[in-house]
Amino acid sequence: MSTPEHENDEVQERLARLAAAGDTDALQEAVAEMHPSDLADVVESLEDEHQVMLLSALPADLASETLAEMEEGDERAELLAALEPARGAELLSELPDDDAADLVAELEPEERRRLLEALPLEDAGDIRGLLRYDEETAGGLMTTELVSVAVTLTAGQALDRVRVLGREVEDFYSVFVVDDRDRLLGTMRLDHLVTADPGSGVTGLVEPPVATVLPDMDQEEVGRLISRYNLASIPVVNEFGVLLGRITFDDVIDVMEAEHTEDILRLAGVTDPEALRSTWSETVWARLRWLFVNLLTAFLAASVVWIFQGTVDRMVALAVAMPIVAGMGGNAGTQALAVAVRSLALKEDLGGRAGLILVFREVGVGLVNGVILGVVTALAALAMDESVKFGLVVMLAMWGNLVVAGFAGSVVPMVLDRLGIDPAVASSVFVTTFTDMCGFFLLLGLASAILS
Amino acid sequence: MSTPEHENDEVQERLARLAAAGDTDALQEAVAEMHPSDLADVVESLEDEHQVMLLSALPADLASETLAEMEEGDERAELLAALEPARGAELLSELPDDDAADLVAELEPEERRRLLEALPLEDAGDIRGLLRYDEETAGGLMTTELVSVAVTLTAGQALDRVRVLGREVEDFYSVFVVDDRDRLLGTMRLDHLVTADPGSGVTGLVEPPVATVLPDMDQEEVGRLISRYNLASIPVVNEFGVLLGRITFDDVIDVMEAEHTEDILRLAGVTDPEALRSTWSETVWARLRWLFVNLLTAFLAASVVWIFQGTVDRMVALAVAMPIVAGMGGNAGTQALAVAVRSLALKEDLGGRAGLILVFREVGVGLVNGVILGVVTALAALAMDESVKFGLVVMLAMWGNLVVAGFAGSVVPMVLDRLGIDPAVASSVFVTTFTDMCGFFLLLGLASAILS
Repeated sequence: MSTPEHENDEVQERLARLAAAGDTDALQEAVAEMHPSDLADVVESLEDEHQVMLLSALPADLASETLAEMEEGDERAELLAALEPARGAELLSELPDDDAADLVAELEPEERRRLLEALPLEDAGDIRGLLRYDEETAGGLMTTELVSVAVTLTAGQALDRVRVLGREVEDFYSVFVVDDRDRLLGTMRLDHLVTADPGSGVTGLVEPPVATVLPDMDQEEVGRLISRYNLASIPVVNEFGVLLGRITFDDVIDVMEAEHTEDILRLAGVTDPEALRSTWSETVWARLRWLFVNLLTAFLAASVVWIFQGTVDRMVALAVAMPIVAGMGGNAGTQALAVAVRSLALKEDLGGRAGLILVFREVGVGLVNGVILGVVTALAALAMDESVKFGLVVMLAMWGNLVVAGFAGSVVPMVLDRLGIDPAVASSVFVTTFTDMCGFFLLLGLASAILS
Repeated sequence: MSTPEHENDEVQERLARLAAAGDTDALQEAVAEMHPSDLADVVESLEDEHQVMLLSALPADLASETLAEMEEGDERAELLAALEPARGAELLSELPDDDAADLVAELEPEERRRLLEALPLEDAGDIRGLLRYDEETAGGLMTTELVSVAVTLTAGQALDRVRVLGREVEDFYSVFVVDDRDRLLGTMRLDHLVTADPGSGVTGLVEPPVATVLPDMDQEEVGRLISRYNLASIPVVNEFGVLLGRITFDDVIDVMEAEHTEDILRLAGVTDPEALRSTWSETVWARLRWLFVNLLTAFLAASVVWIFQGTVDRMVALAVAMPIVAGMGGNAGTQALAVAVRSLALKEDLGGRAGLILVFREVGVGLVNGVILGVVTALAALAMDESVKFGLVVMLAMWGNLVVAGFAGSVVPMVLDRLGIDPAVASSVFVTTFTDMCGFFLLLGLASAILS
């Protein structure tokens, strides 16, 4: 029980063999006790034709949840499209409407139309309704399937209604209470409802909602609210307060994981959000675009060296010190940058005074670390038999560049954030260009001044 | 309702004024309707003495939850220690034991002893029990407060017990069912229990647990299970299957956020997990250690230039091309690295064949992008009036270095992962050292060969 993923490796192999052998009965028996998330892994490891076979043979509820738990993207869309249309429609109507809408959104327009036509009118309507919302908003995350009761009911009537609705709705964490125009009044705890006098009204049990969201709120913001207030689900309402749906914590966990991946890749200059699953040629092109941006900035940095070619020619040891001074600036700048980017992402207030303090902190860190690293580097240069003048130049250049790094590393992300640009995407190229140019300029400029 | 954080800014200022004026009554009234998470922000923005005043004046349940929602760390530990011991103990006993244990763990040993002695014996025992576990494990996350019933009860008896226990336990998402030795048999849905015949046994309602964890499981692994199986809570059992506690999704969301911060900072060489909150001198020292590692690797890379000083002396334009070739290798290597690190973190299987495929992909990306970027750089060199030989050297060096970058960027994190080292911490320094050295070696080595 405690390590289900590891045990699954063997199961997975066995199922793949059964699917390859076309033994439907044995297959059905073998998967009967499996969790859809585990089964999804198995399906993903199978050949296309075996995927279709397995999903056709499984009970509809298990098959539909397995499909919902597969990686989002082309593979499962193709699998859904490859099923008999009637089977495809059956699986979709088994699913909560948000999962169904996510699947339908991945289909080609042709396939989408065909499946929606095969669905019962009501299901198709719900899915069409959800498809209107941008998938990265609250509307794109929510399900319209929820348990709500009218505020006019007695506790006994409300409990009866919860029992009926509860059979249809999976994992409801709160009972929503609405007025006669479907406007959300609040939530009610199931245990409070159960213990209330059946004849009393539910009004006394209603707690105001901790937070509500509008359907166009960005999914990251939804995640922050759920995380801030420890909510298992959050209601989505329109501008009149009418209850439209709910978003549950598990959707938010998925969003957080996706955003995490995106942030890390963006900081490294991989801007394609689908990077972990894209084809080879997509990868080449996505990376190349970013590397071209970097190439232009590299030319910029190198142009500083070009200007000082004469100085390098007179003292070739400068070419040895160049990568050290520029590289250390880049490293220190990246440190400051990561702290600023993460502080901004966690919505720490970096406006006004707090922002200034951060910049001063970072410049101060650069002042201290710069002088230490500068002295060490200068001593290394002296040990290599270079002149004291050369050591002095290296020390001053390193010192100055680390101060610049602290400044650029903290200021650049804040400025980008103010301009509405995601600091995770663009900060790093600005900061390292800055530290490269300043590093070369300080080193070669000081050398030129001291040597002449 | 929809944007509670923004509305809070004004409230926050008002409360700070009231606290500064010492107006306890107005203060109590003003905060009565606030969520503890919002109140925690307010408290954090106050002066130390006003913090103590506010937490002393608030109702105990609100004050304790506010304390629990404050940022973990020294500030709230000092606040707790500054309260009257009796008040401190009162707040602790209001909290779920996992939150209380987290707070107690932050106290100085002296304070810790004093507060535990002021607590009722049972509460102190629970907290001491939880303090035994490493805070980054399942045991460190779990609360022992849960709703469990014996499998021998009837549905009616079980419901009565749930009503009693439910009053004490906040946010229970499942009813756990145990045998006569407290071993976990499974979970039961509250709505199923409510609708069952009161005279029937609960046995028929028990569903086997989807997953259980041992107390020493790493918190990241717990997060993966909760996320994989969409669980609102996961039971913690010992090696005999005895139910010890439960971990809820909101703790896991906090863990995910902390790990996200840690990953991003580590990739940037900020290895201190408390980096966003550490003092200035801690920051200086933590960064300096990492920069020293980088300095050593920078010396390594510069030593390649040192060996080829003669070559640079004969053709100083090489000093201009050096940062371009080395830098582009670093950028391309970082892209490959981020993809590999994130794939490893998401537990994608990169053993054996999948790992080989990843390396081949990345080397292939380097082959294509390297030749394109190499040609562009060579053309730029020719436009700057350098020789065709020089252009050829630059092109070949760039090409080779991007292939090296693809190789190192994918292989290094996989090797570190195999060795049990977090690839997020160490990969980047290895990869950029590799691309710097290879970049200089290819550029200067080829130049030396072609020029002589």
